[in-house]
Amino acid sequence: MGVVDSVLAGDRLSLARLLTQIENGTPDGRAAMDALYPYTGLAHLIGVTGAPGTGKSSLVNHLARLFRCPPEGDVPRRVGVLAVDPSSPFTGGAILGDRVRMRDLAGDQGVFIRSMASRGSLGGLAAATASMVLALDAAGYEVILIETVGAGQAEVDIARLAHTTVVVEAPGLGDDIQAIKAGILEIADILVVNKADRPGVENTERALRGMLQLGHSTPRAYLHHGEVEMLAPTAGVGADSPGWQTPILRTVATEGAGIDGLYQEITRHRRYLDESGEWGRRERARLQSELDTLLQASLVSRWRQTVSQEAYQEVVDGLLKRNISPWKAVSILLNSKGSADI
Amino acid sequence: MGVVDSVLAGDRLSLARLLTQIENGTPDGRAAMDALYPYTGLAHLIGVTGAPGTGKSSLVNHLARLFRCPPEGDVPRRVGVLAVDPSSPFTGGAILGDRVRMRDLAGDQGVFIRSMASRGSLGGLAAATASMVLALDAAGYEVILIETVGAGQAEVDIARLAHTTVVVEAPGLGDDIQAIKAGILEIADILVVNKADRPGVENTERALRGMLQLGHSTPRAYLHHGEVEMLAPTAGVGADSPGWQTPILRTVATEGAGIDGLYQEITRHRRYLDESGEWGRRERARLQSELDTLLQASLVSRWRQTVSQEAYQEVVDGLLKRNISPWKAVSILLNSKGSADI
Repeated sequence: MGVVDSVLAGDRLSLARLLTQIENGTPDGRAAMDALYPYTGLAHLIGVTGAPGTGKSSLVNHLARLFRCPPEGDVPRRVGVLAVDPSSPFTGGAILGDRVRMRDLAGDQGVFIRSMASRGSLGGLAAATASMVLALDAAGYEVILIETVGAGQAEVDIARLAHTTVVVEAPGLGDDIQAIKAGILEIADILVVNKADRPGVENTERALRGMLQLGHSTPRAYLHHGEVEMLAPTAGVGADSPGWQTPILRTVATEGAGIDGLYQEITRHRRYLDESGEWGRRERARLQSELDTLLQASLVSRWRQTVSQEAYQEVVDGLLKRNISPWKAVSILLNSKGSADI
Repeated sequence: MGVVDSVLAGDRLSLARLLTQIENGTPDGRAAMDALYPYTGLAHLIGVTGAPGTGKSSLVNHLARLFRCPPEGDVPRRVGVLAVDPSSPFTGGAILGDRVRMRDLAGDQGVFIRSMASRGSLGGLAAATASMVLALDAAGYEVILIETVGAGQAEVDIARLAHTTVVVEAPGLGDDIQAIKAGILEIADILVVNKADRPGVENTERALRGMLQLGHSTPRAYLHHGEVEMLAPTAGVGADSPGWQTPILRTVATEGAGIDGLYQEITRHRRYLDESGEWGRRERARLQSELDTLLQASLVSRWRQTVSQEAYQEVVDGLLKRNISPWKAVSILLNSKGSADI
């Protein structure tokens, strides 16, 4: 049985191997994903992001358990967990994290957990993450929790993969001007103040509420200024959805407090996505953004094959000597293969 | 007098306008930078990065003041400060930050401070930051402090701009597995534990020391896995320099404690860069990385002009219906303009 059939049949070892192939960018992995793609599109992708120390992993573990053993009336779901840590280039950390998690959810065949560390390139990371999500989706995981660390642009880009984005904060980080991470609030469908038994929880909640109000009055178009990523304008992703008010919840993940409420809000958001047509809108934005990332990588690698290393280094020498500017350099390099002027 | 001459003559208003043009990506700004490029290459670029709440801004303000009024024997330097906050899409925050800073260093014509918020695109942000640094360089600022918030991939990419990278930590963030931000340590030339009057400073320092040792034993090639950003392998940027041991310093920026020591280490690193030939190596890596970012943006925008919005949306429709995979979609889109198969 080939890898495609084994993955579709639910074989965990085949899935694990496929994920490694995707992470390493092998042609075999790409071919398998090509064949698996028609079987995707069913999973509910939930992004969970927040700064280090907010207790995201603990929250994700509890959520995974609730989706497996939900309150009466709800159907248990197969759960995939993808933990992405773009700030760690060491697999060591990721593996350690896996062990801690594995112990927690061990033995449950309906849960699949995978960590990935950075590959040094944001574009590469986002593309690999997107493909790994597709693989889990094709393998029949109905809920996929995508956990990212931090609040930078990388996390915003990865959150673009999700249907529902949960942003986790903790008391005590909100007293700094720069802790008000407006960019990450902008993409939040649900806000969680974890470690809510700590002092300062009211301040954090108030700051978040203030930023949310500010965020909603900002034209979303502002986010679509960049040239590189946006091949075409993507439909709004994140908090800017008519008919959905971003709730702010309190949890204490270490004690499991408030997780039920979070589960309910995620379920409610899923229902909202279905009923409002927002699900389709986000699917389109997500696939478009994924396509753009792949296009960009292909354009670059195709161009690279047309220019010799010598010609390239000669241009860099000119830059170093300040003989030519970076813009002139681009023009020279792109024209060297007989293309139109930029 | 044109903008180029005014900027070279040290006119602050012209510089401020040019920076805005660069930030907005106008053709005028690009033309001016093309003319100014030969006057760049003299500034010492110092990156200062760290998570929210570590007190970076305060540290940067103190450093700026020390470069202006250095210890006896050192020459006072003209100082540019560029504060980049990729997590904030709101100019409001950046402007507020500016006001706080301005009050602090007000009236000194030898200091120029500029904040920029996110433009929603990492590529765009990195390119704009690189150009703004060039503008400050051409305008005669001899030391340029580039401040970034956070510890994600975006910050690592921006740090690649610097000759000397200072990474700021604070006690109390180090007790979480995920707080060990190996990626950001990897690029540190100097590590600072700010807020060193707080409990836990020994633990933070010990954790950093451990991670540094781990980092130095990791093959650096691991970082160059990505396909998208690395058109050609860049020479090592960051901590992995033979002959330089990353020092760990303690500061209490609010009281100005330890800033002298930080200033001395930065000066020592500058000397090390000059004497070891590492300055030239980093200049090459920096310019190459900048060139690659511009190349990527040009390739994408050039390609975009060759494909109609209708053809593009038709492919996205196929993706949504799962009729074609993302990889097939790329192949279709790139071949639609008669290019070779990918």
